[in-house]
Amino acid sequence: MKQSLLLGIALLAGGSTSPVPAPNQEPGLAPVQIIAAAPAADWAAIAPSDLLVMDLGPDAKGAARRVVIQLVPAPFSAGWSSNIRALAAAKWWDGTSINRVQDGYVVQWGDPDGEDKAKAKPLPPGLKVAAKEDYAVPASSSLLQEFIKQNGGGTTVALPKDAYGASGEFRSGWPLGRDTDAVWPVHCYGTVGVGRDNPPDTGSGAELYAVIGHAPRQLDRNIAVVGRMIEGMEHLSSLPRGTGEIGFYKTAEERTPITAIRIGTEVPDLPRYEYLSTESKSFAAYADARANRRDTFYVRPAGGVDICNVPVPVRRVP
Amino acid sequence: MKQSLLLGIALLAGGSTSPVPAPNQEPGLAPVQIIAAAPAADWAAIAPSDLLVMDLGPDAKGAARRVVIQLVPAPFSAGWSSNIRALAAAKWWDGTSINRVQDGYVVQWGDPDGEDKAKAKPLPPGLKVAAKEDYAVPASSSLLQEFIKQNGGGTTVALPKDAYGASGEFRSGWPLGRDTDAVWPVHCYGTVGVGRDNPPDTGSGAELYAVIGHAPRQLDRNIAVVGRMIEGMEHLSSLPRGTGEIGFYKTAEERTPITAIRIGTEVPDLPRYEYLSTESKSFAAYADARANRRDTFYVRPAGGVDICNVPVPVRRVP
Repeated sequence: MKQSLLLGIALLAGGSTSPVPAPNQEPGLAPVQIIAAAPAADWAAIAPSDLLVMDLGPDAKGAARRVVIQLVPAPFSAGWSSNIRALAAAKWWDGTSINRVQDGYVVQWGDPDGEDKAKAKPLPPGLKVAAKEDYAVPASSSLLQEFIKQNGGGTTVALPKDAYGASGEFRSGWPLGRDTDAVWPVHCYGTVGVGRDNPPDTGSGAELYAVIGHAPRQLDRNIAVVGRMIEGMEHLSSLPRGTGEIGFYKTAEERTPITAIRIGTEVPDLPRYEYLSTESKSFAAYADARANRRDTFYVRPAGGVDICNVPVPVRRVP
Repeated sequence: MKQSLLLGIALLAGGSTSPVPAPNQEPGLAPVQIIAAAPAADWAAIAPSDLLVMDLGPDAKGAARRVVIQLVPAPFSAGWSSNIRALAAAKWWDGTSINRVQDGYVVQWGDPDGEDKAKAKPLPPGLKVAAKEDYAVPASSSLLQEFIKQNGGGTTVALPKDAYGASGEFRSGWPLGRDTDAVWPVHCYGTVGVGRDNPPDTGSGAELYAVIGHAPRQLDRNIAVVGRMIEGMEHLSSLPRGTGEIGFYKTAEERTPITAIRIGTEVPDLPRYEYLSTESKSFAAYADARANRRDTFYVRPAGGVDICNVPVPVRRVP
């Protein structure tokens, strides 16, 4: 069992991969049990200033629908993130809608008339234009080294090269892909990215999508990842699928209204959230258990796991 | 581009992996364009006797909801498949319900009282009891060789060893995992499997689930894969999520009723379906394009793809 663990997952110190002995753990613990047993010190706070809170119109039964997104930290997608903060401050999304739900792929929201120059809602002034090079951060970037140092630094969980030619690692709660040149946040279930037109357009951040199916990793480094769902995902994933081309709704009536999108600091009743530190022993044990299920239900641990099948645990602060 | 292709995908002849030159194709074709351009001869009929048709109660607007599942062919999961045919013939599922919807994971259906011996609906007599060894087929099995020969035989698309330690290949329209010992159908978005209790239980087939999130490959060889959604997936994936433990509905009112489940030959108005032959040149080109997106939208082809990100195209016969 320990051997198959080492095949699947290594612990990564700084920038170099070096297999080390597996963390001690009770045989048979399920990932949820490891999360439940993690000490308070293994949980890291998420700043409200890094949250994007989306309120949808009430559902068919009149219940409120709130979706909470965590924005990816700098140096990743910094230009788009800056635009998203400006759009939220301008209350730009209020009165826009969810316009596309393509089964097994994405939910997309923003201005339904965005493609129509005559009817499109004007964007606030001063938005940045990011370059396609900004979809990833150079591996040699001093900003990246700074980010790694600031956020737990040394040891974290690393995954060997995957089907997409990328190594995987977890830093400050984020699943990251890495090759010899660059590091980037990957597309998993619940990932939020920036819709765009064909290149050279890179998108402003006004049009956003969330992944509701199998990880579309082909989008990595082709489009900006800006965040991930941490609460209320089901309000998007259970929406009726669009019947138009690539899941767009055919009529305005089918769209779900967005009443407001705000940065977390502007939302008075927002709970506090925390994630299981990806630099903690609990996370290493959790990732190992995702790769090697030893709980009672399983008869054959896989001996490995892909990066999107190790979702970083996030919860309300107890 | 060709080089990165070869890293990602090889063509597999018989049982051996041997990289061969990439199929010729127009630069820039998107996967959907390759599917649209595939000649009629590259499509293979799905026998109605291999379909399981599930009718749900009407939706909130009174519209009918039909879900069509293709059963995996022998030699895979043969014992469970036989039970499923017997259960459908006995109309056993009529009046049961969808009891669990766990976001990002599975939708599950069957007898809501199945766990309660006093209230459980009796199963028809003569159901088989499969062994955990039946979750996969031995690589040396003559039945497997027969299956490969009968269904196009030689050349198909193969994927290198993945994060789960399995090679991937496509046979007769199915994504299969392979290691030195065995071959098995893998868990992807839309895969249908057999719910079970803790081992040694292997499940009868009366309790079924469909994957509605990122591929839970840890379930491979731990539970029986019996089919996949080919139409109506959205009727399951967009259901309200269960609010109870692991997504079970807390009340009977929340469950979606199943009015009938039948084998396709018993459904008079059923359309004919076909899949893009995984042994065809069109499928090889499609899989290559999934691994190396060269259409206008993309700026950086990935150079590889995981097996669940190459969904086999299925359509109604035009």
